Amino acid sequence: MTALTREQCQLLDQQDPLRALREQFALPDGVIYLDGNSLGARPRASTARAAEVVSEEWGTGLIRSWNTAGWFELPQRLGNKLAPLVGAGENEVVVTDTTSINLFKVLAAALRVQAMRDPSRKVIVSEASNFPTDLYIAQGLADLLQQGYSLRLVNSPAEIDAAVGADTAVLMLTHVNYKSGEMLDMAALTELAHARGALTVWDLCHSAGAVPVALNASNADYAIGCTYKYLNGGPGSPAFVWVAPALRDAFWQPLSGWWGHAAPFAMEPQYRPVDGVRRFLCGTQPITSMAMVECGLDIFAQTDMAALRTKSLQLTDLFIALVEERCRHHPLTLVTPREHARRGSQVSFEHPEGYAVMQALIERGVIGDYREPRIIRFGFTPLYTSFTEVWDAVETLRDVLDTETYRAERFHARGAVT
Amino acid sequence: MTALTREQCQLLDQQDPLRALREQFALPDGVIYLDGNSLGARPRASTARAAEVVSEEWGTGLIRSWNTAGWFELPQRLGNKLAPLVGAGENEVVVTDTTSINLFKVLAAALRVQAMRDPSRKVIVSEASNFPTDLYIAQGLADLLQQGYSLRLVNSPAEIDAAVGADTAVLMLTHVNYKSGEMLDMAALTELAHARGALTVWDLCHSAGAVPVALNASNADYAIGCTYKYLNGGPGSPAFVWVAPALRDAFWQPLSGWWGHAAPFAMEPQYRPVDGVRRFLCGTQPITSMAMVECGLDIFAQTDMAALRTKSLQLTDLFIALVEERCRHHPLTLVTPREHARRGSQVSFEHPEGYAVMQALIERGVIGDYREPRIIRFGFTPLYTSFTEVWDAVETLRDVLDTETYRAERFHARGAVT
Repeated sequence: MTALTREQCQLLDQQDPLRALREQFALPDGVIYLDGNSLGARPRASTARAAEVVSEEWGTGLIRSWNTAGWFELPQRLGNKLAPLVGAGENEVVVTDTTSINLFKVLAAALRVQAMRDPSRKVIVSEASNFPTDLYIAQGLADLLQQGYSLRLVNSPAEIDAAVGADTAVLMLTHVNYKSGEMLDMAALTELAHARGALTVWDLCHSAGAVPVALNASNADYAIGCTYKYLNGGPGSPAFVWVAPALRDAFWQPLSGWWGHAAPFAMEPQYRPVDGVRRFLCGTQPITSMAMVECGLDIFAQTDMAALRTKSLQLTDLFIALVEERCRHHPLTLVTPREHARRGSQVSFEHPEGYAVMQALIERGVIGDYREPRIIRFGFTPLYTSFTEVWDAVETLRDVLDTETYRAERFHARGAVT
Repeated sequence: MTALTREQCQLLDQQDPLRALREQFALPDGVIYLDGNSLGARPRASTARAAEVVSEEWGTGLIRSWNTAGWFELPQRLGNKLAPLVGAGENEVVVTDTTSINLFKVLAAALRVQAMRDPSRKVIVSEASNFPTDLYIAQGLADLLQQGYSLRLVNSPAEIDAAVGADTAVLMLTHVNYKSGEMLDMAALTELAHARGALTVWDLCHSAGAVPVALNASNADYAIGCTYKYLNGGPGSPAFVWVAPALRDAFWQPLSGWWGHAAPFAMEPQYRPVDGVRRFLCGTQPITSMAMVECGLDIFAQTDMAALRTKSLQLTDLFIALVEERCRHHPLTLVTPREHARRGSQVSFEHPEGYAVMQALIERGVIGDYREPRIIRFGFTPLYTSFTEVWDAVETLRDVLDTETYRAERFHARGAVT
């Protein structure tokens, strides 16, 4: 196929039903931002919201704002706004803590459920290419438990079938791989796990707000994810946690802090978990960072994941086609699946000089990122990425490669990071 | 003794060497704020700092700000600014996560150290009146470990001596009690614990920025605390963690996320902790909330804990004397120790109608708080509390009690919270 011209891209932008949403984001001039899968762009509303929290709610309301400004209810209120984006129901999600911490909670809860059902199940199956912190958390928990728990890593999704067996407690997977952009089949893998007696834990960091997710419809058991990537919650904004309603009250997770207590202000010396997903709360939350999550979620409320998915696939299809046409003489290898059903909202290519190529792109205002080894990664966020930007980004990439600018950049960049 | 007149208090304010610092805080008109031990007042600089993080660092810098704005180094940079306030050294403290989460980390680390030294030590000794979340976290960890770990609670500090023995792994105490305001002798209790082979974990939530703390000089082992009370970091701002240098590299704590990895961007599948206190980091931190912690710490840098302690004791002495003189016909019982060495920076009284009394005070702009059962609690933050405010607060209390306003308020307030 012949990829589109820049004029055709401009026409697509004019016809884009989502184009008005871009106006709700503040993006700097001279930048094509293709790194929303690492840190989402800033919703314009966040400045005013931060000022309101700091000056009025904190400054004037002071301690009273825990009630009057609804701070104490924020994790659940935001969870309810986020839930529809991941196929979860009302009062099934809370926004709190970090992805790593939340993973520890749900993994511990899942292992405990299994210990009650069948104590011989002590293996956590995951992918070696999972985001490392997920593996580190599983290692930390297994090491803490000291009861023969272990982590079994497979080298590709195709190996999962053989790896999940009678010894498996949990199948812990990231729905969309941070490096390759490959999306797994949540329903099929959950069914596989359940058929073998295992529970599933899904990391949705690169899924929430990026692709349609159907947690309940997939019969998933536990999920966690972050709000600062595709959900545009701001740097390090708190993460979220979801637990299947049937499992939610089965165990009080071990990070049993006072925010998860049935009566947090009764100051009882014995922990007594509240019913429902709020038992996955622990300590006092960073209110300013958390409040801004709502600005991102409020933009999603103006559209739906089906519309976003349609544009996302158009953007990634276009990017792949343009790169393969216009940069075809360069050693670029597509890493992301071509098949729509297996693709998230990012595109990754391998290039032997990937690091230097990305440095040169960033120098010219095309911001993607680099992941070891040799992978240049581009995230496409249909809320604010335009078709014309895709065209211009590829044109910049073509020029960087054709003129070998990256060779000069490499020297400079390597010097900076050594 | 006869307590001071309002005019004498005004004179003390004029002579107060710390009075200029109050100008650096934004406090609402018509409020006497005596709840800085729950949520500290807002440093004026925080508005501009929040706006800078949101609009410039996030909005314009985007993903680049992890390096260019120093976000990745923030936990350690803030830890170094906080360290002098708690008697810790350079690179011994990080600001991260919540108090509850950090307690879980250090408690797990301490138990692991003990398991290597003497596996028969499986008891965590603490006070029944410790802040409940500390007890809940210890319960959650003991329950998770499932190896005979348990929590032994004493009913008063006097019982600690008898409770710490050959089975004790950890003595876990809060330095200043959140309810009574009683301060424990950190050095003596640490010496007692060490003499019996136990390690100490100190919760500094009501100490950091409130009283001088000497972690290293006391030979303490682990400490955690919050930044949103006396340190004025903002609602739910991240907590801190300190570990004695000798113990720091002994164990990789179980919340082993990528921020604590020796090479976080190498994306290795195996966890490998960084040397030093940064191994107590876990996941990506809420940058906006965290950045504002610096505004509070920068005010402390303009004075020292000795000067703050002097004024703190003057304020609490004055409050006690005024209440006992002017409200002497009312059933108020001082809960906080009179002895300076045993007093934090708050004063608590019991009153049979404590809840209603506090509601009436808040209604009139004197903001303290209520803690079950029957305790009205007043925090004094020498950075911004004046002697005249102490006088006026007691006058309001006297009037509320003399006119029995609180009886009307009680009806209203109980209705609101039922």
